[in-house]
Amino acid sequence: SARSFREERRIDLRLGHRVLAIRPEAHRVEGEAGGERFELGYDRLLIATGARATRPPIPGLEELLGRGAYTLKTLEDGRALRAALAARPRRALIVGGGYIGLEASEGLRAQGLEVTIVEALPELLPFLSAGLRARALEELARAGVQVRAGTALRGLARAGSAIRAETSAGPLEAELVLVATGVRPSSELAAAAGLALGAGGAIAVDDELRTSAPDIYAAGDCADARHGVSGERVYVPLALRANRSGKLAGGNLLGGHAKAPPVMGTAVFKLHGLELARTGLSETEARAAGLDAAAVEITTGSRAHYYPGGGKLSLWLQAERGSQRLLGAAIVGPEGAAHRIDTVVAALHGRFTVDELHELDLAYAPPFGPAWSPLLTAASQLSGALRRQDAAPRAAQTLR
Amino acid sequence: SARSFREERRIDLRLGHRVLAIRPEAHRVEGEAGGERFELGYDRLLIATGARATRPPIPGLEELLGRGAYTLKTLEDGRALRAALAARPRRALIVGGGYIGLEASEGLRAQGLEVTIVEALPELLPFLSAGLRARALEELARAGVQVRAGTALRGLARAGSAIRAETSAGPLEAELVLVATGVRPSSELAAAAGLALGAGGAIAVDDELRTSAPDIYAAGDCADARHGVSGERVYVPLALRANRSGKLAGGNLLGGHAKAPPVMGTAVFKLHGLELARTGLSETEARAAGLDAAAVEITTGSRAHYYPGGGKLSLWLQAERGSQRLLGAAIVGPEGAAHRIDTVVAALHGRFTVDELHELDLAYAPPFGPAWSPLLTAASQLSGALRRQDAAPRAAQTLR
Repeated sequence: SARSFREERRIDLRLGHRVLAIRPEAHRVEGEAGGERFELGYDRLLIATGARATRPPIPGLEELLGRGAYTLKTLEDGRALRAALAARPRRALIVGGGYIGLEASEGLRAQGLEVTIVEALPELLPFLSAGLRARALEELARAGVQVRAGTALRGLARAGSAIRAETSAGPLEAELVLVATGVRPSSELAAAAGLALGAGGAIAVDDELRTSAPDIYAAGDCADARHGVSGERVYVPLALRANRSGKLAGGNLLGGHAKAPPVMGTAVFKLHGLELARTGLSETEARAAGLDAAAVEITTGSRAHYYPGGGKLSLWLQAERGSQRLLGAAIVGPEGAAHRIDTVVAALHGRFTVDELHELDLAYAPPFGPAWSPLLTAASQLSGALRRQDAAPRAAQTLR
Repeated sequence: SARSFREERRIDLRLGHRVLAIRPEAHRVEGEAGGERFELGYDRLLIATGARATRPPIPGLEELLGRGAYTLKTLEDGRALRAALAARPRRALIVGGGYIGLEASEGLRAQGLEVTIVEALPELLPFLSAGLRARALEELARAGVQVRAGTALRGLARAGSAIRAETSAGPLEAELVLVATGVRPSSELAAAAGLALGAGGAIAVDDELRTSAPDIYAAGDCADARHGVSGERVYVPLALRANRSGKLAGGNLLGGHAKAPPVMGTAVFKLHGLELARTGLSETEARAAGLDAAAVEITTGSRAHYYPGGGKLSLWLQAERGSQRLLGAAIVGPEGAAHRIDTVVAALHGRFTVDELHELDLAYAPPFGPAWSPLLTAASQLSGALRRQDAAPRAAQTLR
């Protein structure tokens, strides 16, 4: 409560206060609370306005939001969605095949709904290699989730107890529509105050989380970040980075000069019976960053071949030609993908080469993987491929 | 088969040939095959004699081996043990509480046997911190395994259909005795030829796997290794290192100069419903290496607190005072311990400080852990503790 913040932590928390304008030169903010205007001065200001679910400009969507169509970002969103499920809808249409849409497909299938995902991009999970993406799609099919990629949603309209969706691939009907087209940073207040915006329309910050205006910091999902592999500014609205930047900004507001560590593009999620994890740059991202990259894709067992249980673990590993520096990885499998990716994260932070990854004394026991961890096997194959490629004319961009 | 080795790989494999002596000066070996003596010359020689299960000097053991008492190292050992289980023994006595003894306790419990482990050392799993060791012991108790640590086995004798064991804590009876007191390197041939022995009685090798004799290399469980944290020579008879050194030695025999990467003391095993993993130095090992170390021990959820399933994950993390360099870690939990340790392995190879570990952009999703990975939480706490300790007089060796 505001009271415990004030009494126990000596933080003057003011709920119900909406800031409407920041005046950087005056070091003041203006706003309204309970119908009254207020003004406050500051020595230093932190903008932590977060992000919100995007609402794509689909004709008919606005009228249906909260009445059959839902977003999923806030606790309130979750409650509204749960209330809608209590009415026992038979079919769900998920708009958007990103993390949230894919994770939601599992919950909705578990509730017994028929689930269709519509994705405007030509393919789902563009950050995965072709082989790993195929495994994800197989798993969605196995779980009974219909996927329509490269399909534009053109309009939504009430049709009796259902909602009718017009798409570029024909009409679809569902009782429940989940709009999961990502989030956008709540950076309008900062932009109106003249602060520079950066990646993805987020507030541009430096490593100390300072914005372009003196004495104003930004942290969390409203601010951008630096990617540790490409060095570029990126927008990564994920929990760990947001949480970490909040802690850092607090210290820096009080005079500290701590630097936010780079993000590595790490993400993991559960897709029905599979774990999907990635870090670093995807093939497309490496190309966009002007890096000359090569990659390998391997599939091994998630356990020693003679140990019962487990399944196939697929790993994609990418490195830069010449320097042999690791650039990124992705892992898909029924177990051991989520935590294995962290080894690559550490290797990226350490700017390891492929050969250095191959030297790691990784843990082995039959229930947890083969004696040569998939990471070591992939590193060995990629090292060999890079050596051959460096000696040969550079034809193919990717080795598989 | 020897034939496919010869025809497909052009390797002159000679089975049934026992080398009895190496003559380094003459670059020759002598031995016997099928009752005949043979001699062979070499340009370079690789000793890959492996290790064998130790047989502690327990009165009565030799007579019972293969007839109620068994070791567990070779495929033949496994077959003999399985044959013994076919006679449906009711009680098993495991001599030795190391990896093999503990892993075997699971298999024997699964077969319905009463299982007692007798360990001569005052406690099991001396490389774990006190809190993590307590969790392992709880799990053994939960699984119905009796543990008698600090108990010396003084003799074994046939007693009807059972075997009677005299111990320092009184007599025990079992139909089946498994002797799991570790392995020793098969280095006698090398020692007899005058080659220097190193850690644990294994053949001393340098980073290129050369022994003390010209043109003789050693690899696998018969040779020692270098520890990447302490820099000391160690004996680590584990699969990945043995496998890796074999590949390296093959290349170096043919004129290569590849260096074996250091071992990091990494090990993992399944203990009934728990995963136990470790890497780097234990507290005792750090002290023995003359390092001024501090450690923290934390317990978190193996999943986000609101996500169903999972359990408690306990993590112990150790670093050097002053340099703040990571020295080692151990993890115990129902899931996610085996692969999480590899992140620390990578950090040890990269000689990361505690603060560098804390900066890692590790993967997060609710099914796989809290937003702040246990590794990050432990690093944060250890960093704070090191800073306080560096400012204060150095009283306690370990912070908990």
